[in-house]
Amino acid sequence: MEQMEILARDARESSRLLARLTSAEKDRALLAMADGLERSVDTLVTANLKDLEVGRSLKLSGAMLDRLALDPARIRAMASGLREVAALPDPVGRTLAERTRPNGLHLRKIATPIGVVVIIYESRPNVTADAASLCFKTGNATILRGGKEALNSNRLIAEILVTAGRSVLGDRFPEHAIQVVPIADREAIPALLSLTRYVDLCMPRGGEGLIRAVSECSKVPVIKHFKGVCHVYVDRDADLGMAENILFNAKCQRPSTCNAAETLLVDRPVAEQFLPGAALRLLGKNVEFHAAAESLPLLKKGVGDRSAVMRLATDTDYDTEYNDYVINVRIVDGVEEAMNHIAQHGSAHSDTIITGNEATARRFLAEVDSAAVYWNASTRFTDGGEFGLGAEIGISTDKLHARGPMGLEELCSYKWIGVGNGQIRG
Amino acid sequence: MEQMEILARDARESSRLLARLTSAEKDRALLAMADGLERSVDTLVTANLKDLEVGRSLKLSGAMLDRLALDPARIRAMASGLREVAALPDPVGRTLAERTRPNGLHLRKIATPIGVVVIIYESRPNVTADAASLCFKTGNATILRGGKEALNSNRLIAEILVTAGRSVLGDRFPEHAIQVVPIADREAIPALLSLTRYVDLCMPRGGEGLIRAVSECSKVPVIKHFKGVCHVYVDRDADLGMAENILFNAKCQRPSTCNAAETLLVDRPVAEQFLPGAALRLLGKNVEFHAAAESLPLLKKGVGDRSAVMRLATDTDYDTEYNDYVINVRIVDGVEEAMNHIAQHGSAHSDTIITGNEATARRFLAEVDSAAVYWNASTRFTDGGEFGLGAEIGISTDKLHARGPMGLEELCSYKWIGVGNGQIRG
Repeated sequence: MEQMEILARDARESSRLLARLTSAEKDRALLAMADGLERSVDTLVTANLKDLEVGRSLKLSGAMLDRLALDPARIRAMASGLREVAALPDPVGRTLAERTRPNGLHLRKIATPIGVVVIIYESRPNVTADAASLCFKTGNATILRGGKEALNSNRLIAEILVTAGRSVLGDRFPEHAIQVVPIADREAIPALLSLTRYVDLCMPRGGEGLIRAVSECSKVPVIKHFKGVCHVYVDRDADLGMAENILFNAKCQRPSTCNAAETLLVDRPVAEQFLPGAALRLLGKNVEFHAAAESLPLLKKGVGDRSAVMRLATDTDYDTEYNDYVINVRIVDGVEEAMNHIAQHGSAHSDTIITGNEATARRFLAEVDSAAVYWNASTRFTDGGEFGLGAEIGISTDKLHARGPMGLEELCSYKWIGVGNGQIRG
Repeated sequence: MEQMEILARDARESSRLLARLTSAEKDRALLAMADGLERSVDTLVTANLKDLEVGRSLKLSGAMLDRLALDPARIRAMASGLREVAALPDPVGRTLAERTRPNGLHLRKIATPIGVVVIIYESRPNVTADAASLCFKTGNATILRGGKEALNSNRLIAEILVTAGRSVLGDRFPEHAIQVVPIADREAIPALLSLTRYVDLCMPRGGEGLIRAVSECSKVPVIKHFKGVCHVYVDRDADLGMAENILFNAKCQRPSTCNAAETLLVDRPVAEQFLPGAALRLLGKNVEFHAAAESLPLLKKGVGDRSAVMRLATDTDYDTEYNDYVINVRIVDGVEEAMNHIAQHGSAHSDTIITGNEATARRFLAEVDSAAVYWNASTRFTDGGEFGLGAEIGISTDKLHARGPMGLEELCSYKWIGVGNGQIRG
């Protein structure tokens, strides 16, 4: 696909120019982009109407159409997102390590842009401005590929951003800094992701199917977020009131998120005391229980015999991210068995232990191999904003380069700069 | 391939146990491994003789057979390598960032093992002990795949290391912490590198062909070193004596290494003054010149009309890592053209500028997008030892996770630990 080759080569060339921009220039461009979006409310809404038509002809659900829709308020929200990114410190050029070697050679490890980043996502056009701005702030050229039903909106957003950037920086703002894959063709993605010469990184955002398809076909490094099967483990030494609050928050505060809990593990000695009340609390949100056999009677003790909201858990249940008011419940024999369950069924995303026993907590924190591990706190905190990263491009469940919430620093690579006065190797 | 699945699953299980070892336990095991190797000189030499026979039957070159051979001195060198690794600080558990959020949640980002690391390499059995020890020190389980002609030596080395580890740590030393792929079968590699569920990282070490084949087939993240096409750029403001010394060092001190220079770029205003003398100096090592047309007469001015050691450079030459006494020579118009040449032909490994002009140097250091960029120093310094990393598992020309020399810290991932007292998300 020659078209993808040109797109990627253009991005690579633009990335060299992006690396030369000063922090002040980048921020000036971001503010102009925000203004540009706000000035384009009418044309954006018009372009978006075409997309909504496409969406309806594709028989998208009401929820999907809602995610696709742009209105003046959403456009203003995109603009203020850009202004927030402009206000963040520039992570590029930070000194990460520094030393002078015995021969006098001075070494400095500094943060650099990664180069060319491909972002693949579904539907929501606000991701276009969001991802483009974070990549631009870090000096990366971006190639964006949203849902095919959002193509008109996405292309126009990219055009507005580039035009705004060039209006303040002129030719110093590279023409191909922000590109949208201009065709909906399915083969565009594998073609693009085979161009290891030009593309440095791909970040897919969306459902497990999309992520899996992208990882399968990509020759380019992928940082991904497969799924969030997060656990709340209530230990024998837990403050059970605290445990119930954390469980309720982790499950019910926003079940559609990746850091919501999917499975409750309860230590045997406190199961009888904890489960009936916890079940009743969750029932308040109509939570459905998929429970291991021995926990069923204890749940029923809390909520009565409502077979509609309760069934035996299967192994598949323990591996499932429901994104909904559903929870698996299992009684375990202590922290060891809880950790074994998490190792077997977890997605290495976010897991929490509720306990008053420091030794038990320390073991859990040390041995559970997840991006974020909590002691006496909700799993819902795994988030760039909650971590104070300033902005979030995504959450990685991988172990290389970035793990957990990814902010601006995680959109950087680094290089070593060696300054000498004639040093040669002996 | 069920055999690979078992191998990888065993490694994954062992990696959980490895993560629990204390620094003291790991160092004790490493010292026992060193003793174990030294006590096994005879059996190692015997196993290695079998490999050498295989090597001869495969008609390996003398140089290849030499790399394959183990003798008491080389075994002692392996052992002292292990003792050096034991003496290094443990990178696991280091605090990489720490903060308390306004809600009181305390967050700590700490270095962790990566998990399961596959190392693929050619011939030299000392890599087996070397790579295994670095991975063990960082709490990673290792799966090693050396050249098929080294299988007897490699299997015995891994066996000695594991036996030694268990002799001091007993069952706390996991049985499958260090494994050698037990079959020479070519299909073992793609089978192993499809097991994303168990394997976290693959690091191929060797020629470009091996690296390319591994990257092509792997579904697991790969950190690689493609090639080292390194440049020396002699700027118009260079101290030409220093430039000649650095050029000579970068090309001739050890041309077989990846950080040796392959191309000399000379700024036009100093070409006439610099090239004849530099050519004569390189001719002392019988360096062969592949030169752009306009530089030929200047080189000939230095070394006379020796057609045997001089020919016109092709575009392919500029992309080639010779690993030999050969150098490309090209005259450029200033730093901009030099940087364009490097962007087009370089391998993003190591490049140096020789200049007395700080502004020119700063531009080169900022804009050349390579793992290591030098000012007035030889490219030969790109090395874990020279950088003071303590040990080196390889050099990455990738941009994600690790770039340039990789030491123990680069064999780590990280996780976030959140400690609260009941925090829930509002």
